[in-house]
Amino acid sequence: MIVAKTREETRKAVAEARKAGKSVGLVPTMGALHAGHVSLVKQSVADNGFTVVSIFVNPTQFGPSEDFTKYPRQLEADAELCRKAGVDVIFAPAPHEMYPEDFSTYVEETRLSKGLCGRSRPTHFRGVTTVVMKLLNIVMPDRAYFGQKDAQQAAVIKRMVRDLDVPVEIVVMPIVREGDGLAMSSRNKYLAGDLQSEAPALSRALEEAKRVFAAGERDVAALQSVMKNVIAAAPHAKVDYVEVVDAATLEPVKKIARTALVALAVFVGDTRIIDNTVLEP
Amino acid sequence: MIVAKTREETRKAVAEARKAGKSVGLVPTMGALHAGHVSLVKQSVADNGFTVVSIFVNPTQFGPSEDFTKYPRQLEADAELCRKAGVDVIFAPAPHEMYPEDFSTYVEETRLSKGLCGRSRPTHFRGVTTVVMKLLNIVMPDRAYFGQKDAQQAAVIKRMVRDLDVPVEIVVMPIVREGDGLAMSSRNKYLAGDLQSEAPALSRALEEAKRVFAAGERDVAALQSVMKNVIAAAPHAKVDYVEVVDAATLEPVKKIARTALVALAVFVGDTRIIDNTVLEP
Repeated sequence: MIVAKTREETRKAVAEARKAGKSVGLVPTMGALHAGHVSLVKQSVADNGFTVVSIFVNPTQFGPSEDFTKYPRQLEADAELCRKAGVDVIFAPAPHEMYPEDFSTYVEETRLSKGLCGRSRPTHFRGVTTVVMKLLNIVMPDRAYFGQKDAQQAAVIKRMVRDLDVPVEIVVMPIVREGDGLAMSSRNKYLAGDLQSEAPALSRALEEAKRVFAAGERDVAALQSVMKNVIAAAPHAKVDYVEVVDAATLEPVKKIARTALVALAVFVGDTRIIDNTVLEP
Repeated sequence: MIVAKTREETRKAVAEARKAGKSVGLVPTMGALHAGHVSLVKQSVADNGFTVVSIFVNPTQFGPSEDFTKYPRQLEADAELCRKAGVDVIFAPAPHEMYPEDFSTYVEETRLSKGLCGRSRPTHFRGVTTVVMKLLNIVMPDRAYFGQKDAQQAAVIKRMVRDLDVPVEIVVMPIVREGDGLAMSSRNKYLAGDLQSEAPALSRALEEAKRVFAAGERDVAALQSVMKNVIAAAPHAKVDYVEVVDAATLEPVKKIARTALVALAVFVGDTRIIDNTVLEP
């Protein structure tokens, strides 16, 4: 396994794999890898002869008051995990390798990215689509892997790939959860003491919504109320949003008549946690 | 030569050329081909084993009050010209092939695109970068060819390719002029009667600026004044801008100390004409 710091080194390794007739998978990450990432890596290794994992804490997707500087960085542990999983190249560039000082071009999805997390993080998805476009152009993979935990991100990336005719297949893998239901996230590291035991309120709220939905409830306000009650029971939890949207357009709905995405963002202490589930009527 | 209406057909033809070991050149155009386009096509045919010319009047680069509907369309004459020049594929999609109804992703260059033509055409370059990114992703050429007549466009495209790590070489070809100095443009077709004889005022203004510059003038206000006087002599000419900018950053300068781009946009009757030259101190 190579740990490449430059685009050139990465491209060279991929070109050799291509010459050997191998298909290429890309798993874009910000590092601090957990079992959710590992599920993406394993799928890529199963699907492709050659797997690249990018590890890059991307400054353009963080807002000015967000956790860019304190975001966990642990390249050695990540590399060990990748090696065991059969990764061929880790692409771990420094910020200046990705963004020259006079960088001035962005990719922006203008509809799906505006609601949900886009409302509280207005420049986030522009940063995500821009860096993913760069990574796709550097690695030129056959397939790229994303987690359903970031459901809106997956939808935005799929839309970008469709709209800009990017020749890649986007594979979205299911949410991986802790034993207590908490969706795996690198930001879970921020949760100390009591907060750790309060964070599973999100997945419990989703479970409760699924139960009520299965019993016939189709009214979104009623489902939201059920979920908010579960979250309110956690003393350090503060709702950012509890929404039910059309799974295709990500537009809010009032009654569930088509496949819906239930998406939550909740501050547990200072840590913003997201989770979601899909409801099929 | 194939005239392909779909992305799929185009990709298939390019894939076959790739399999045969050929390099691929792309000449993106809006059709109504003239000798300027032909110079790009000839260069591509000389540089590459396989040349694709795209002919697409791109709606997203026209403003609401601009000439999208009346822009000249003449696919048969264009095809004849391409066939003679040795083109392998014309990609001539309908708008819905490029932009589905729920299209929502744009590529935007945020610095070089803001001055000059970007000031009077605020959404123009976003449309250009978006469609060029799509064309590059559809054709995946080794080289793509643009004309220096649209100097700002060439700078914006080069910046986009650098910033987003697009694996393509951008080749910029010199301006081709009529005998009277008028820079070739599909929009010259709009010029009737007197306007035709007034339009060369732009190139005369540039020639005059070059002469004064060669004689030692470095003050931009003085050069602007010289050019505006030449243009003012044409009764139906109305200046949009007469600017001298740094050739690398496209920022306005007051004295010429580094390579500068002199750029003009002038309405001749209702037709907006642009032209430019480079000054090397």
